[in-house]
Amino acid sequence: MARKAAIIGGGVIGGGWAARFLLNGWNVSVFDPDPQAERKIGEVLANARASLPALSDVPMPAEGKLSFAETITEAVEGAEYIQESVSERLDLKHRVFAQIQQSAPNTLLGSSTSGFKPSELQENAANPGVIFVAHPFNPVYLLPLAEVVPSPKSDPQAIERAKELLREIGMFPLHVRKEIDAHIADRFLEAVWREALWLVKDGIATTEEIDEAIRMGFGLRWGQMGLFETYRVAGGEAGMKHFMAQFGPCLQWPWTKLTDVPEFNDELVDLIAGQSDAQSGMHTIRELERIRDSNLIGFMRALKDRNWGAGKVLREHDERRRADLFSENPDSSAPLLMSRMQVLPGWIDYNGHMTESRYLFAASETSDAFLRLIGADMDYVAGGHSYYTAESHIMHLGEAKLGDALTGTCQVIGADEKRLHIFVRILKGTEPVATIEQMLLHVDMKAGKTCAAAPDVLARLLPIAEAHKSLPRPESVGRHVGQRKA
Amino acid sequence: MARKAAIIGGGVIGGGWAARFLLNGWNVSVFDPDPQAERKIGEVLANARASLPALSDVPMPAEGKLSFAETITEAVEGAEYIQESVSERLDLKHRVFAQIQQSAPNTLLGSSTSGFKPSELQENAANPGVIFVAHPFNPVYLLPLAEVVPSPKSDPQAIERAKELLREIGMFPLHVRKEIDAHIADRFLEAVWREALWLVKDGIATTEEIDEAIRMGFGLRWGQMGLFETYRVAGGEAGMKHFMAQFGPCLQWPWTKLTDVPEFNDELVDLIAGQSDAQSGMHTIRELERIRDSNLIGFMRALKDRNWGAGKVLREHDERRRADLFSENPDSSAPLLMSRMQVLPGWIDYNGHMTESRYLFAASETSDAFLRLIGADMDYVAGGHSYYTAESHIMHLGEAKLGDALTGTCQVIGADEKRLHIFVRILKGTEPVATIEQMLLHVDMKAGKTCAAAPDVLARLLPIAEAHKSLPRPESVGRHVGQRKA
Repeated sequence: MARKAAIIGGGVIGGGWAARFLLNGWNVSVFDPDPQAERKIGEVLANARASLPALSDVPMPAEGKLSFAETITEAVEGAEYIQESVSERLDLKHRVFAQIQQSAPNTLLGSSTSGFKPSELQENAANPGVIFVAHPFNPVYLLPLAEVVPSPKSDPQAIERAKELLREIGMFPLHVRKEIDAHIADRFLEAVWREALWLVKDGIATTEEIDEAIRMGFGLRWGQMGLFETYRVAGGEAGMKHFMAQFGPCLQWPWTKLTDVPEFNDELVDLIAGQSDAQSGMHTIRELERIRDSNLIGFMRALKDRNWGAGKVLREHDERRRADLFSENPDSSAPLLMSRMQVLPGWIDYNGHMTESRYLFAASETSDAFLRLIGADMDYVAGGHSYYTAESHIMHLGEAKLGDALTGTCQVIGADEKRLHIFVRILKGTEPVATIEQMLLHVDMKAGKTCAAAPDVLARLLPIAEAHKSLPRPESVGRHVGQRKA
Repeated sequence: MARKAAIIGGGVIGGGWAARFLLNGWNVSVFDPDPQAERKIGEVLANARASLPALSDVPMPAEGKLSFAETITEAVEGAEYIQESVSERLDLKHRVFAQIQQSAPNTLLGSSTSGFKPSELQENAANPGVIFVAHPFNPVYLLPLAEVVPSPKSDPQAIERAKELLREIGMFPLHVRKEIDAHIADRFLEAVWREALWLVKDGIATTEEIDEAIRMGFGLRWGQMGLFETYRVAGGEAGMKHFMAQFGPCLQWPWTKLTDVPEFNDELVDLIAGQSDAQSGMHTIRELERIRDSNLIGFMRALKDRNWGAGKVLREHDERRRADLFSENPDSSAPLLMSRMQVLPGWIDYNGHMTESRYLFAASETSDAFLRLIGADMDYVAGGHSYYTAESHIMHLGEAKLGDALTGTCQVIGADEKRLHIFVRILKGTEPVATIEQMLLHVDMKAGKTCAAAPDVLARLLPIAEAHKSLPRPESVGRHVGQRKA
């Protein structure tokens, strides 16, 4: 039974929350009186469907059911979590909370507010203990950060449950321990925005020049290390104190300057809007969203490869979801069905097809599952023995495309104490898109030499090899690259 | 004849400049009276050698010659460009400039200063016209941004020459049209630093929490779009004006708050240094540098795939060098060196070795680079034609481990209008860890059929194929899986 989240207030932020819950398998009920809400959320969801799965290396759960409620009461009924993203007006938020808590007084209630502190949100609430700030960052379906801000009135257990729940939908809940205006991240954004307004107003730089000054330099640093770790590295072996020691009379405490506030008027708005048109007007907003999401996927996948920053969050999220795909007992009178996979956006190359190395990846998933089946699993490897692949021959026979469901089968061609000769088929339906013939050698990893496999392993492997002798030998076994067909 | 740059002042910034010039084929002469300068620059150079080539898809030029000069006069002799990165003391910079201009009054003279304006640097100079700010960002060998700031006294032609020269070493010169304290980017850094000092001082957040608030959210946005383009997208179809319209009474002009200045004292320094130790102390600075550089490479390669932001700079830099490559004619007496890679944590399997499918990934990186070299690049694919891999044979010959530097070479075994038979070696040092024999077919993607490659492509491919006929045929070409050695 899918879990249910209620999203109060649609738009870009509410829609982003809805998309994140839906793609993580939750049912979502949205309440938003705007007649355009369904279209708007549909657009955000389309972007999310085109991007979020590209970050996953395990099959996504079935998408939850999206519904639109006529009333707040209907939306929150049976919900395990409620996220409020209505306009930034405190009186409106108070009215919405009162209505929510009439029918769901004990349900976790997060607010997307950037402008209000949780103690302000809680004023006059029926149950202030379950109300807190859960401040996300656009695009909500991709960026992991959610600032979770309780007030002293918030129930600590409710906050812990909320954080765990946010982790379950792939987010990084940052617990802000003391409430403060603008939480943490937006304080930086406001400081930078103030400076940027000055620079444009005084004609020092255009919006485009300012964006280049950020994305060609420190923006790249901040996406992976933030502020302090970056400066720690800049300080060299002497570390953080050394970095800070350089601030002295010669730099005249630079952060003590530049605190004037520019006047914000129509003239400035027009100036900025005009420059922004010149900079980005050749792309529609829809195009820019896709470009942004594609870039974010690239960054986050790079971090995932390196198990760092946001990539660490992605890996942990995969671990949670990695289901044991094989509880069934394999039948040894046919090639063994060893893996089920889905072609994810991250597996696609610039031709729009599954990228070459992913076929071998799919084969590895299949042969690894076979090795686990015969007992050559991670514990066995930890004991110092393993099967190494010595040689592979891949035939590309068809094309796998985005979203295709693939299965991997394993047929044993031959086996003895040290050698394991297998033939893996990667199938789309019943048609092979690739076949991979492999020779594996059993090795003593410490000695770096082949040796006989453990009796346990052989006791499982050899009967399968014997049974597979009766299977037809695949035509391409023994084939070399470029060989003419017989 | 290699061009020469003079680097006055070593350290992390001067060393970064030296590395960038050297790896782009320039000779570099360094002057720095610090007896540790040679060691320090050597360390920066080692980092640069391990990372910068990973951004290039064309072979790097031969590294320039690094020398250390006894005097400024010796360092600048014959230099086409001089970069000053001494300590941030104006009197020191003036003395250095006077000495430089005694012997090289007309040479372009950029300063790495973040603290001084160009008009201040030019005071009392023999030739102020060639002096300007060229403010880089650490790590200088990777990040493309250099803020180029002239004063009214600077010679506009000199500034244009300097910008062109910086592009030639792969940088993005951002012309700051009016001089101003802290140029552009550092004004943002100072504003953020001030806010961060407050948050730590007041116990709102630790250094680690602040770094997470940045790198899990807006840091990822800023690395690819900067500030204004990000907000433009957030504003939706209604655009920038709509985004700014949301600032109104309800948000109380947020950037007008938070302008107080925290007191900077030993207590605050100790607090920050202690938190930073707790956050990052498990890594040495050398490790953090490598992690940072590896992450930056991941980001920048993701942007390069998408031809966006810093990735556009990388592509343009490749284009400049590819032209050189064809004018030189690739050395056909050896397999072509087409790729340099590093084994990343995400490439490692549970055996602690590079995972099997990554060898094919490495081969794809190599063959893709070869395809780009012969003009079958992404534009060509966009036009509806491509090379598809029909068949591959992989020999696993060695073990690659975490952090290993790998190179990929490509030898053409045979080629005609439709077929391309190649042999890729993945090398650790000079030893192959894997070889991959592949048959690629040229296809009309729409028709789904093989067809002849474009004349342009064949005009590049066939001479290489002809030249490679003289190379020894690799022993394993034509081998099938499990074949006994001859």
